[in-house]
Amino acid sequence: MSKNKAMYLEDVRVGQRFSSDSYTLTSSQIIGFANQFDPQPFHIDEQAAKETFFNGLAASGWHTAAITMRLLVDCVGERFAGGLIGKGGEISWARPTRAEDTLHVESEVLEVAYSPANEEWGIVKVRNHTLNQDDKVVQTFVAQIIVPRKIA
Amino acid sequence: MSKNKAMYLEDVRVGQRFSSDSYTLTSSQIIGFANQFDPQPFHIDEQAAKETFFNGLAASGWHTAAITMRLLVDCVGERFAGGLIGKGGEISWARPTRAEDTLHVESEVLEVAYSPANEEWGIVKVRNHTLNQDDKVVQTFVAQIIVPRKIA
Repeated sequence: MSKNKAMYLEDVRVGQRFSSDSYTLTSSQIIGFANQFDPQPFHIDEQAAKETFFNGLAASGWHTAAITMRLLVDCVGERFAGGLIGKGGEISWARPTRAEDTLHVESEVLEVAYSPANEEWGIVKVRNHTLNQDDKVVQTFVAQIIVPRKIA
Repeated sequence: MSKNKAMYLEDVRVGQRFSSDSYTLTSSQIIGFANQFDPQPFHIDEQAAKETFFNGLAASGWHTAAITMRLLVDCVGERFAGGLIGKGGEISWARPTRAEDTLHVESEVLEVAYSPANEEWGIVKVRNHTLNQDDKVVQTFVAQIIVPRKIA
């Protein structure tokens, strides 16, 4: 994404799209993240994972989420005035992220919400699809982002 | 949580509650996680963070989410047959997680959903509140967990 001027709430438009760079993750990264934050057999043990729901090693959903955030920050972190500050959102994992998957994120602004009660900032709803190298969605995160207003 | 028999979908009851152990995080962990996954000033630079929305260093929401997952896995990971496998859910961050905060998770089963089309597993909806040492909610994650059925 080119270095344009940072966007305030008034500059954001429904339908705006962003596309991130890509990132390839390894089995040792999957196991390292999971040993720290999600130490279940299907995330930390290639052999044991074969006998589970995932039929093989899969990244923790929170690892996919964290990589997605990094791709978003690198892509649009400096485009939004004040940075990328999430209030929350809806997350879902449609299929597992596997070792050697190459992920990228495609985002679209769904809503720009002003609040009469808040002159300092509003909420931008952005749908972020995280896709693998086969263009299959591994994660969808519909985020509510806090974006400052110009008049603040 | 004591070592009871693993629960299948038929064993889960609306209103069941779980409470995790606690975990204290440090500023260097906040900065380390954020340097990797969410390198924005309010997550990686104590001085710069003072001039931002957060008025000081705050953990990435995804760091709070990852710590929450670890507390849940340690608490109930072996209680659910097949492990803790999330399909997705709604996440929100009510206030920042700060350095030296001591977090724990309080969970309650909200729904147990059978699908006529799926004899192998169903969905359990669990609300997970992540609380700090002042019993203030820092994160709420209403998770949809995939739980196998006994008859599968």
